[in-house]
Amino acid sequence: MSRFWSEVARGLSPYVPGEQPRHPRLVKLNTNESPYGPSPRVLAAVADTDGDSLRRYPDPDASALRAIIAAEFGLAAKQVFVGNGSDEVLAHTFLGLLKHPRPLAFPDISYSFYPVWCGLYGIEAQRVPLDAQLAIDVDAFPADCGGIILPNPNAPTGRLLGLDQIERLIAGHSDCVVVVDEAYIDFGGESAAALVDRYPNLLVVQTLSKSRALAGLRVGFALGDAQLIEGLDRVKDSFNSYPLDAIAQRAAVAAFEDRAWFEDCRRRVVATRERVAVSLGALGFALLPSAANFLFARVPGGAARALFTALREEGIIVRYFDRPRIDEYLRISIGTDEEMDRLLAAVEAWCGVGGAGDLP
Amino acid sequence: MSRFWSEVARGLSPYVPGEQPRHPRLVKLNTNESPYGPSPRVLAAVADTDGDSLRRYPDPDASALRAIIAAEFGLAAKQVFVGNGSDEVLAHTFLGLLKHPRPLAFPDISYSFYPVWCGLYGIEAQRVPLDAQLAIDVDAFPADCGGIILPNPNAPTGRLLGLDQIERLIAGHSDCVVVVDEAYIDFGGESAAALVDRYPNLLVVQTLSKSRALAGLRVGFALGDAQLIEGLDRVKDSFNSYPLDAIAQRAAVAAFEDRAWFEDCRRRVVATRERVAVSLGALGFALLPSAANFLFARVPGGAARALFTALREEGIIVRYFDRPRIDEYLRISIGTDEEMDRLLAAVEAWCGVGGAGDLP
Repeated sequence: MSRFWSEVARGLSPYVPGEQPRHPRLVKLNTNESPYGPSPRVLAAVADTDGDSLRRYPDPDASALRAIIAAEFGLAAKQVFVGNGSDEVLAHTFLGLLKHPRPLAFPDISYSFYPVWCGLYGIEAQRVPLDAQLAIDVDAFPADCGGIILPNPNAPTGRLLGLDQIERLIAGHSDCVVVVDEAYIDFGGESAAALVDRYPNLLVVQTLSKSRALAGLRVGFALGDAQLIEGLDRVKDSFNSYPLDAIAQRAAVAAFEDRAWFEDCRRRVVATRERVAVSLGALGFALLPSAANFLFARVPGGAARALFTALREEGIIVRYFDRPRIDEYLRISIGTDEEMDRLLAAVEAWCGVGGAGDLP
Repeated sequence: MSRFWSEVARGLSPYVPGEQPRHPRLVKLNTNESPYGPSPRVLAAVADTDGDSLRRYPDPDASALRAIIAAEFGLAAKQVFVGNGSDEVLAHTFLGLLKHPRPLAFPDISYSFYPVWCGLYGIEAQRVPLDAQLAIDVDAFPADCGGIILPNPNAPTGRLLGLDQIERLIAGHSDCVVVVDEAYIDFGGESAAALVDRYPNLLVVQTLSKSRALAGLRVGFALGDAQLIEGLDRVKDSFNSYPLDAIAQRAAVAAFEDRAWFEDCRRRVVATRERVAVSLGALGFALLPSAANFLFARVPGGAARALFTALREEGIIVRYFDRPRIDEYLRISIGTDEEMDRLLAAVEAWCGVGGAGDLP
């Protein structure tokens, strides 16, 4: 704490991202990265970078990227906003569209950055409890809130809401902005992007970090009514005119151009997820149904912390949340089949010797 | 204006960056970019990007980059903050270190993003007038302000304050943070980085966009006491954990590794600036002494807007600010010698026919 910090800086409780250790033999299943890497077209676009594109400022509007995203979703470019990762897109959304006198409602268990942005911008948070099965109940959101945000599928549970439920939520709260945060939608869900033309209060946020394997590039986007996008552009243009560098803009365009790669990668992730879910179930894990590129599983005996530690000693890193209601669960990203086999072998060994068998 | 916008979004007056037209024959002297491009080592680092570095999240702390910047300035890594362009660094600085009950003081003519960030974060601005020669008078800053920010050299005037003046300002305001925004310092000034170890209230902000020719990459940094840097990290970790993508981090490191390239480019820019200043002076322009990679020149007869328009028709773009006290000036970035010869020829033609001669 320093006397030079503003009151805002003093009051912050920063987000803590999953660790990023760099050991070659590590099996890293803690931050939901793609195991397959980006399309070769992305790498070609990066390698093609010349000095001119680096010495000049990039396009502040990222027009080519907005255009290809618009085409991908059957929308107009003015219905697309882009930013430096979906985290930046969400941060601007909190300040520009979700900061209102009435509180912002979101699920009590969801992306743990939401309360951090509330703290950053002085937004009152209203937590809506998940039901007993850790599912979101759209009817539980209060009628008079100032805004709503929810991940779909939810994080870290991986549970999906159908588009009919999402639409009921949007239609039932036409006086406030409803943000559907679809970081994981490509692994089993139907995007609410299809509803953008019909609901001026809907904002859909997606990222290239997961299904497009570009976590290292930092590109996210939002889809919504042109007036919502204009509001986001106003905040962006009052914060940083050029949030996306020249390489990221071109590489992201290349990622959208290679549909076959995208389809193949997500299909493989889903197939591996289903196989691992069966294996973990057979070992006594209780799995929530996942529509994401991770599994959220209750460890036998609730011994999540012990298994987290044991796996770490084997060089396998998963995510453990020391928080009420989910502290008996581990979130396990879907890696390659080979990585998941290493995980399953380690879990099996742990279950056999001094693991679940001995726990209540 | 939309009913869904927050009060903040409604009240914003966004920054308007210099235009970025893309015509191959254009002489673009409007945004102070480097005419020489980045070091070949930067391009090699970019071309060396592999899929693994893109599918994984980047290092959230940009440790390698902080380390090389610290070494460059003889500081410790904990005295270095990095961000997505110096604009993002400055934005976090406004919120974390400059938002206080008392107003923030800055020169009345300086970087026009300062009042925009004040608007974004609800910071009261106190404008300190430049003197009659458009120079900053450090003794004019009020004793009881909540913070001070100034560019050195100033923008868009290009005028430099000596390190003795800067130190007097910092020492005289030990109760508030003094931010020295050194975007252009490498073209003729002495950095206040040398004072960081002695003044806990000093923050120096620099960018790789100008002297390191990486405007397209979006990397900026701040140097200051470890407690100031910790305050900035708190804001950053409450906004976006990964502001610098994997490629930008590695390319920026490569830029610092090639000192010879950096020295050569800035030497050439300074030589061209001095030559062009003499030529413009001979044509009747009144030039402020520049320590930057641009010239700020009063057009003969004060006909800045007319010359701006005439140059544009010739495919030469410079910057014109339609604001009191500086609306008779043009800001002209230093390009290659060939580009500047085209500029001088066009200016000469304009002065000869219907230009300055006919104006009061």
